Amino acid sequence: MDRVLVHNIGMLATPRGFSARRGEEQGRIEILRNAWILCEEGRIVSLGSCEPPVTEARRIDAEGLLVTPGLVDAHTHLIFGGWRQNELALKLRGVTYLEILARGGGILSTVKATREATEDELFDKAWDALDEMMDLGVTTVEAKSGYGLDLDTELKQLRVIRRLNEEHPADLAATFLGAHALPPEYKEDREAYLRLLCDQVIPTVAKQKLAAFCDVFCETGVFSAEESRRILETGKRFGLIPKIHADEIDPIGGSQLTEEVGAISAEHLIVCPPEGIEAMRKAGTVACCLPATSFYLGSTFAPVRDMIAAGVPVALASDFNPGSCPSLNLQFVMNLGCLRYRMTPEEVLSGVTLNAAAAIARADSIGSLEKGKQADLVIWDAPDLDFLGYRMGSNLARLVIKKGKVQGGWLRGLYD
Amino acid sequence: MDRVLVHNIGMLATPRGFSARRGEEQGRIEILRNAWILCEEGRIVSLGSCEPPVTEARRIDAEGLLVTPGLVDAHTHLIFGGWRQNELALKLRGVTYLEILARGGGILSTVKATREATEDELFDKAWDALDEMMDLGVTTVEAKSGYGLDLDTELKQLRVIRRLNEEHPADLAATFLGAHALPPEYKEDREAYLRLLCDQVIPTVAKQKLAAFCDVFCETGVFSAEESRRILETGKRFGLIPKIHADEIDPIGGSQLTEEVGAISAEHLIVCPPEGIEAMRKAGTVACCLPATSFYLGSTFAPVRDMIAAGVPVALASDFNPGSCPSLNLQFVMNLGCLRYRMTPEEVLSGVTLNAAAAIARADSIGSLEKGKQADLVIWDAPDLDFLGYRMGSNLARLVIKKGKVQGGWLRGLYD
Repeated sequence: MDRVLVHNIGMLATPRGFSARRGEEQGRIEILRNAWILCEEGRIVSLGSCEPPVTEARRIDAEGLLVTPGLVDAHTHLIFGGWRQNELALKLRGVTYLEILARGGGILSTVKATREATEDELFDKAWDALDEMMDLGVTTVEAKSGYGLDLDTELKQLRVIRRLNEEHPADLAATFLGAHALPPEYKEDREAYLRLLCDQVIPTVAKQKLAAFCDVFCETGVFSAEESRRILETGKRFGLIPKIHADEIDPIGGSQLTEEVGAISAEHLIVCPPEGIEAMRKAGTVACCLPATSFYLGSTFAPVRDMIAAGVPVALASDFNPGSCPSLNLQFVMNLGCLRYRMTPEEVLSGVTLNAAAAIARADSIGSLEKGKQADLVIWDAPDLDFLGYRMGSNLARLVIKKGKVQGGWLRGLYD
Repeated sequence: MDRVLVHNIGMLATPRGFSARRGEEQGRIEILRNAWILCEEGRIVSLGSCEPPVTEARRIDAEGLLVTPGLVDAHTHLIFGGWRQNELALKLRGVTYLEILARGGGILSTVKATREATEDELFDKAWDALDEMMDLGVTTVEAKSGYGLDLDTELKQLRVIRRLNEEHPADLAATFLGAHALPPEYKEDREAYLRLLCDQVIPTVAKQKLAAFCDVFCETGVFSAEESRRILETGKRFGLIPKIHADEIDPIGGSQLTEEVGAISAEHLIVCPPEGIEAMRKAGTVACCLPATSFYLGSTFAPVRDMIAAGVPVALASDFNPGSCPSLNLQFVMNLGCLRYRMTPEEVLSGVTLNAAAAIARADSIGSLEKGKQADLVIWDAPDLDFLGYRMGSNLARLVIKKGKVQGGWLRGLYD
């Protein structure tokens, strides 16, 4: 029998429940002192304070430290070819973004590199990134297509996500984001690309069960609110749950669409207007905010305090991608949650666990430490929850346990 | 014979010289492609491009990656008791800084914890931090006293630095910072504390050869420019080289003092006025800028572009401390150098190698990869220098070589 007892937990901190914590309860975290968790066959069978049960199990001593649920990164662009380090350096040397685009840079250079990469190359590269994310405390990762922008490459990206989900210890959730940009070959005919997406790609993705979600980049110069509605409604007809990149630069109606299409989450929301917050509240949409992208681009930060005050559940995610956020470090995102969004450590914890799980429709099985949920948890090199928001730049994840097995953390080697 | 050949270096990037790179040459980096470095007895004996010499040596394959000098962190408060994670959480819950001070928080809580800690406790804690810094690419670290504010504890901190320098693979440079704050027991008599520093502590530190530098926190409500001058001049009489925390919050004349006292470096400089820049230029003072502290506090950033334009050499350091910057990650500081100071990757490299070495009077032996210098270098998980400023949140240091031996990096275990 596959039993693990994590004992001597100084502080166990977790949200509770099977749906997102809405704003008013975002900071409601249950704390157990001197706690233990018993796992069996990858699930939590019991947990409590004081004396752990006397039972046969492999024992892991948490040494009086903090334990939380495994982190959930609900927004990444994990699958891509190449990097774009030259663009930052060019900008610092005075080259404008338009010149960089004219030289073939920007997102289209990632599209080119992703189209050229083999499936195995994309798989190996993403595998290494997933390993690193797990070492940093992340046990579940959402990943999007969207660097293919043609049928074959979009499917290739999604197949890589499926293979990773099967073979890597992390769990993955797949999102189809064919509407990430207009591909160069459709520059003169956007209607043709929309038809390609709606008539061919979405049906194929759905038929091959390659994604659970359909996302769209609703932004000035990318896809309008009307085009976004059409894509998301098509996705819905094929069983794909809507997500939407909204209000990153211009508030062109993306966040207001959440209510109409019943989006499970909206992403970015840097310039989200009050009407957008109200729409998300009504729809129960999770506001998936990406502070590391704001930081990297030097832009402003999403109005998270307004969202929480209005009752909207907030998740925080990495947005890992080779352009606007070449960081996969969700611990840094937690720092930014405190330092820039002014969230409390408790609110941040909900944001990277239960609310992030809800953003990918998995709050029933992960995102909190409760009987019956998956045994995904992190033993932190921290005495309490405050420490996670406060310390910066060090990997504080000692041991990362996925489905009851040690799979990450900087002490992983000792427990392999 | 203790010989190591690092070969198959895709890009070797280093400043050159035995003094700081002044503004106009801050970005002048020598690049060798397909390079090698031969080390003997901890020093570089030769380096070059193309075919490495045929010689008996332990070989380390850099796998076509980037190699730079080992990083130098020229400003840390490495030795302290306790942490202060509760303060950030209190602030986020609406408690003001004044209330936190009234509850015994702030710097004085670190003073209390440092006074209470044993020398061994301080040593063990700093040892772990140094290990982590080395794993992140840092091979030399400046460390300050200043959480004792009494004779015994200041000496205790400095003895810990000396022991670390003797026993840890990293090199340390010790700075006396007794004038870091006014200790509570002298609240009503600052003159008595100044006399204690000048008449007792500085002479004792110098006699016991516990520090090479004398620093002072010149700031409104801490020490005035006049008091700072007095302390630094006293230090100089006892052979301690002046450094000065200047212009962090208010420009009360700290940076202008650099010329008068001949400071080797000035620290922070967030609100440095043109006269301060001019004084540093004339004195050849290194501007030691601390962007992670600006980031953590949400304040503005030092006018580094103005300094570089004026010809002042700029170093970047972590300012690792438990209050305003609980991060020891110099790679993040390099990101901030690009993203916030708008320095090029080349300028940043000078800032964390040769200029940082110059800020602690060691440009003759470290800070660049040149024949005769110490064999301190990093093999980065990066194809080129641009990559270091661009990628964020991952430890890119594969192997950190200190005096010719592998001592850090995430692949360290393979080479132990």
